[in-house]
Amino acid sequence: MSELYKLNPKGNVTSPKSFIAGGTYAGLKTFAESKLDLGLLRSEVKCSSAGVFTKNKVRSHSVTLSEKNLKKGSIQGIVVNSGIANACVGDQGMIDAEECVKISAKHLKLLPEEVVICSTGIIGVELPVDLIRKGITKIDLSNDGGDRLAEAILTTDTKTKQASITFELDNKKVTIGGIAKGAGMIHPNMATMLAFITTDAAISEKDISECLKKAVDVSFNMISIDGDTSTNDSVIMLANGTSKVKDIDFTTSNGDSFQQALNELCIYLAKEIVGDAEGAQKFIEVKIEGCSFAKDARSIARTIISSTLVKTAIHGSDPNWGRILAAAGRSGVSIDENKITLNINGVCMFENGVPVPFHKEGAISAMNKQHVNIHIKFNNGKFTATAWGSDLSEEYVTFNSMYTT
Amino acid sequence: MSELYKLNPKGNVTSPKSFIAGGTYAGLKTFAESKLDLGLLRSEVKCSSAGVFTKNKVRSHSVTLSEKNLKKGSIQGIVVNSGIANACVGDQGMIDAEECVKISAKHLKLLPEEVVICSTGIIGVELPVDLIRKGITKIDLSNDGGDRLAEAILTTDTKTKQASITFELDNKKVTIGGIAKGAGMIHPNMATMLAFITTDAAISEKDISECLKKAVDVSFNMISIDGDTSTNDSVIMLANGTSKVKDIDFTTSNGDSFQQALNELCIYLAKEIVGDAEGAQKFIEVKIEGCSFAKDARSIARTIISSTLVKTAIHGSDPNWGRILAAAGRSGVSIDENKITLNINGVCMFENGVPVPFHKEGAISAMNKQHVNIHIKFNNGKFTATAWGSDLSEEYVTFNSMYTT
Repeated sequence: MSELYKLNPKGNVTSPKSFIAGGTYAGLKTFAESKLDLGLLRSEVKCSSAGVFTKNKVRSHSVTLSEKNLKKGSIQGIVVNSGIANACVGDQGMIDAEECVKISAKHLKLLPEEVVICSTGIIGVELPVDLIRKGITKIDLSNDGGDRLAEAILTTDTKTKQASITFELDNKKVTIGGIAKGAGMIHPNMATMLAFITTDAAISEKDISECLKKAVDVSFNMISIDGDTSTNDSVIMLANGTSKVKDIDFTTSNGDSFQQALNELCIYLAKEIVGDAEGAQKFIEVKIEGCSFAKDARSIARTIISSTLVKTAIHGSDPNWGRILAAAGRSGVSIDENKITLNINGVCMFENGVPVPFHKEGAISAMNKQHVNIHIKFNNGKFTATAWGSDLSEEYVTFNSMYTT
Repeated sequence: MSELYKLNPKGNVTSPKSFIAGGTYAGLKTFAESKLDLGLLRSEVKCSSAGVFTKNKVRSHSVTLSEKNLKKGSIQGIVVNSGIANACVGDQGMIDAEECVKISAKHLKLLPEEVVICSTGIIGVELPVDLIRKGITKIDLSNDGGDRLAEAILTTDTKTKQASITFELDNKKVTIGGIAKGAGMIHPNMATMLAFITTDAAISEKDISECLKKAVDVSFNMISIDGDTSTNDSVIMLANGTSKVKDIDFTTSNGDSFQQALNELCIYLAKEIVGDAEGAQKFIEVKIEGCSFAKDARSIARTIISSTLVKTAIHGSDPNWGRILAAAGRSGVSIDENKITLNINGVCMFENGVPVPFHKEGAISAMNKQHVNIHIKFNNGKFTATAWGSDLSEEYVTFNSMYTT
């Protein structure tokens, strides 16, 4: 990352100016390490907003309502609960989502259509609206409340994911802050994960969706833990302009600088999610170079990082590079084997289409690290992509076979 | 299955008339339970042939050569080796495949273009052609050699997969025989699996590809163990007409009868593969009913059976039906939640869009079986699909993290 950007791993959504947040325990969560389970976020002034949501056809009613409110274009507050997903509960799900938004709007002194709702947790259980009503009124929002919100969104996560990034535009300080939750079901196209991004930069309603989508595509959409996507994934971004930097023009270098900072922050949070994956022991990075098209590089990186067989091989420090090439081939991208070079943690195992004899014990030793980097050059073009994921361990299976019971 | 069909679980590719086979140990396999690793199959008379191959873009040279020879339309012999995949070895792979076919053709008294080659095993290792040359000449083919061939194709499988099915057409007995291997990497679109089907029915070159493809689509393409597909998957079928039944016309009831028998045999072999999956402890059947299109039913069944989170929940007898609906939603098929009814081993957990209160300990007990049936009705149309797969166990991870080391 450029020295122009300062990333603060203790920053969060209240690091940018004029955002307030808070969290409380409302009694929704019975299984998690963190006790907080209900939170609020508000911009103290009008702001622009954008959201990226799950592509799953079975969706939480909270997602449906948030998407509807975001289209109206005047979001200023977010209510989020953990423990219960508000999905697969019939028509009651929408009634409950609307009621929670109404209660939150009243507490935040906003209109209901200025608030979005995010839920994460177990599917098929109705939101206990009365508990939420009581909880909301207990939440004191403050300029340092981002930490409590970061905790309130967790489910099986073992720690909060949060950071802020600071840089200068036109000699004025700009901050972007973010928090996220993940743990299980993390996958390309965003499985049960939530992320909230705030900034005191000013971005037009026209541009904010596009810049958020770009950042999500290189970050949250490039991580995989177990190949499933959820009913509830949401990334919400609010930009309130209180830094006094003029509206960012994305056709200029200011736009490039902002996009780069936003990408870095989202990549940081995405990697934090992978690092805290349920039952994971290793962190895997797949770097693809030399593809003819950007979508080819992305597709190969994502297919490899999602492969169960690759994940188990990495788990066992097994230099079984054939599984990696087989996963690349399964991506559907046309591949010229004879141009491929493959390294794992610096050990070249395959070069220009033929296996390279390598010292097996040395390779195993090189792979027996907490971080494993898979690097493949296709030598076919200029496009690159990077994906991140976790290994597949016995602990993952144990953990995920006992979720509701 | 209809009483008209007699399935013999001890039958195999030499059960139909005028097929001979054999197998030997050539020294290719160092890791498997079965010692045989090289086999031959031959029709004693001219026959028609068809093949279905992996869709992986990284392919074994054996697949490439077999596909080329099959297009010429006069296949009468098959050579197969286990232990080494002949994939990702550069141009030497095609030289070796051609040489093995040439050696085999000579021993089988056929022309090289009348022989196909299948390989399965570790990627990135060259075929030891001299060992294969010596091995081929040791193989005695006979009318009861199918058992040895069934053993020679195994890798990490713990037992042979074989069967034959017998029925009457025009008062004459017709037999279809088959053998398969699977174990790991089994997935829709056929991961590291091989299957060989023989029949003494007469089928035109025009029809045999279509009827094989139909059978593969409802059998080998509907199973999933770990979501990966391999460089080597192949299903080959030979029909030699020695039953003296006239050419099967697939527009008549004779065609329907033959197709049904072939489907049943392939489904039997596919389920045998699932039952012997590496590290699997449970057998899962996903039955989808009431979809508007056949492809929708197939897509939903395959997405559910491939879900890591569903597999781990079933492993732990966890009645977490939300993961099943989330997987259905991830298939991309448009879903009307309010019409869905979901049962697991007879316990209704979700009906017409709302969760059904069920006794949790009772549901856990119902799921704590070796066979778990997931049954979902979408109530949207008449199309159905069934998929089969294994659970995901701690043993699977242990097994797959130690493959080459």
